[in-house]
Amino acid sequence: MTPWIQPAADDPFGLHNLPLCATRDGWVGVRAGDLVLNLAAAEEAGLVDAGGAFTGAPNLNRFLAAGRPTWTRVRAQLTDLFTGGVTGTVEQHLHPVDGVALALPFEVADYVDFYSSEQHANNLSAIFRPDAPSLLPNWKSLPIGYHGRAGTVVVSGTDIPRPQGQRKAPDEERPSYGPSRRLDVEAELGFVVGAPSVPSKGAIAVDDFREHVFGAVLVNDWSARDIQAWEYQPLGPFLGKSFATSVSPWVVPLDALEPAKVAAVVQDPPVLPYLAESERYSYDIRCEIRWNGTLVSRPPYAGIYWTPAQQLAHLTANGAWARTGDLYASGTISGDTPEQTGSFIERTWNGAQPVRLDDGMTRSFLLDGDTVTISATGWCTGGAVVGFGEVTGTVVTQV
Amino acid sequence: MTPWIQPAADDPFGLHNLPLCATRDGWVGVRAGDLVLNLAAAEEAGLVDAGGAFTGAPNLNRFLAAGRPTWTRVRAQLTDLFTGGVTGTVEQHLHPVDGVALALPFEVADYVDFYSSEQHANNLSAIFRPDAPSLLPNWKSLPIGYHGRAGTVVVSGTDIPRPQGQRKAPDEERPSYGPSRRLDVEAELGFVVGAPSVPSKGAIAVDDFREHVFGAVLVNDWSARDIQAWEYQPLGPFLGKSFATSVSPWVVPLDALEPAKVAAVVQDPPVLPYLAESERYSYDIRCEIRWNGTLVSRPPYAGIYWTPAQQLAHLTANGAWARTGDLYASGTISGDTPEQTGSFIERTWNGAQPVRLDDGMTRSFLLDGDTVTISATGWCTGGAVVGFGEVTGTVVTQV
Repeated sequence: MTPWIQPAADDPFGLHNLPLCATRDGWVGVRAGDLVLNLAAAEEAGLVDAGGAFTGAPNLNRFLAAGRPTWTRVRAQLTDLFTGGVTGTVEQHLHPVDGVALALPFEVADYVDFYSSEQHANNLSAIFRPDAPSLLPNWKSLPIGYHGRAGTVVVSGTDIPRPQGQRKAPDEERPSYGPSRRLDVEAELGFVVGAPSVPSKGAIAVDDFREHVFGAVLVNDWSARDIQAWEYQPLGPFLGKSFATSVSPWVVPLDALEPAKVAAVVQDPPVLPYLAESERYSYDIRCEIRWNGTLVSRPPYAGIYWTPAQQLAHLTANGAWARTGDLYASGTISGDTPEQTGSFIERTWNGAQPVRLDDGMTRSFLLDGDTVTISATGWCTGGAVVGFGEVTGTVVTQV
Repeated sequence: MTPWIQPAADDPFGLHNLPLCATRDGWVGVRAGDLVLNLAAAEEAGLVDAGGAFTGAPNLNRFLAAGRPTWTRVRAQLTDLFTGGVTGTVEQHLHPVDGVALALPFEVADYVDFYSSEQHANNLSAIFRPDAPSLLPNWKSLPIGYHGRAGTVVVSGTDIPRPQGQRKAPDEERPSYGPSRRLDVEAELGFVVGAPSVPSKGAIAVDDFREHVFGAVLVNDWSARDIQAWEYQPLGPFLGKSFATSVSPWVVPLDALEPAKVAAVVQDPPVLPYLAESERYSYDIRCEIRWNGTLVSRPPYAGIYWTPAQQLAHLTANGAWARTGDLYASGTISGDTPEQTGSFIERTWNGAQPVRLDDGMTRSFLLDGDTVTISATGWCTGGAVVGFGEVTGTVVTQV
């Protein structure tokens, strides 16, 4: 039988991926190659059955809430559909991806941002706390994290007004208020909770990660370093982060990332039992950061110290329950070299080593009009790649 | 004309208050004395007109979103209704308050917790950071705050399972995991955003506070001090707080608190212009904390350093927009004496000075089975009092 859709073998959006989206036209979809299937229409036409979770759904939350058995069943249905096992009228519900206006794929419940790259934590410690030991004593005992602002999570492509705020440089006597002078990015991977846990006994065992998390998105956790530096003690980042967090429009299923699993770094000292995984793994996901089109960094996710399974177990370990739409991000992904760092404060070492862009200009922090695009792909055993697409945003003057 | 309802002159829920609620039966209501009017039924019967915001509403969010003009109009309608200006069949929609099962009054969008009592900040600094200066350099320049977990905000009466978590006492070599040994409360006032601000240019001017905030609730920000102490550097409180935050079921309108306005403390040094109020005021709201029935503290809100108008202006100053249902809390309210502190770590000075309860037992932190009830009233010029009711919770063993 001729497949309905036959992406090239090396297409990052081939049928091994099947990432989901929501559109500004009010329907949810799935991508196959350069096409997007309207899942609401497909479900109404009887081509796919998600128990009604697609029909009339403005975003993915209802499907996310349905849980792993439904996710597995629907993925199999879609694979059958795209490979020709179905004789229905699929084509009329397919749209070229370039013509689809993508929206925030799910309504964010709570947003948590972790801090789980050892290289990033070391770099930030060295920059912000030069007199302190490189890692704080708690860092290797638990995945440090904090709650961010769910309401300002925006989809890729949304302009980012330069935040205003208080800042006080060390050589200034008093703080002042105005546009951030040190606007930065953070390249992260974000995990999307589908199946919630039970209120008042919400703890999710570290090995139950896949029962609750549907998939992953790219995250750019825009950061105003000057605002952050002045405000963050003793209760952590607040306005330095809360103005905007961008996510990619495609939610890549964990199922698609299974072949991209790799061994995670060995943890020393050993973790407490509630963080000890039966099977410990990371994903071979490779990011690229482009600054006005110039590739300036390639952060490698695989080396993250705290895995998403550990992060979810930790964030619910106190009994806090998870809700459908909870988003938790890896923390800035940084590798061993400057060319692998996930933020510009690291890439330029707090501005001391500006980067030169292809247009001949140099940059330390973001200027108005600058565009940052983070992309990523999962690298699978066997050679296939799983595309995340990109998360992009342009800095504009706040009016 | 005989009023429909005539609460006693000193009734904290008299017609000068008119706090709103949501019920487990799926309707929203307003309290007058010891009665609750079903606002959904009243709107359907044409007794009140909130533009449909009450009809079929599971909680107050739709009414909150309607904004100040609607809030003012509906408050006038309710006053007319309860004082006899309407001949309709009001009585059939009235329920004795004791028979109404109260629910979380609104769906929480983002939850922010401030740290705006100078006495509390001084006390916590002395306990947690004995070697540091009492206030950090930023404390009087901006209202320090952080995002909490919106999904674990629960209504008064919800049991509080003792949180589990990592903790490491200073004399312990390694952290361990288990039930918190230092479970505490924080008595706070919470402000509820009704009218949202505009995405991407969300800043709310300090003088526009009343245009966006509908009213206030009592908050108990339960806190596991041992978990918090081990986790909070460098990104702030996380699991030490996120297991539960309790709020009172009644949302007291700002309009009801107008007569309880008092001058706020003078700020020195002067604040930056975006935090400078044309009319600076606080509210004379007096809290009481009961531990298993014993009155152990009377925290006074009036002396808070950062007002709710300043807190809202600050939390949106970077452009972050506010959404309907955003909740932001004052931070622990502590006065000048131990008997005015809003947390037990302060009240018992980190356990060094246990309190004796009426049953002869002593306490430093919470034991399983303990019940904490925080109540509050606004004290008005002229002698009336505005009741908040109470926020209560019992600590249970986590299963």
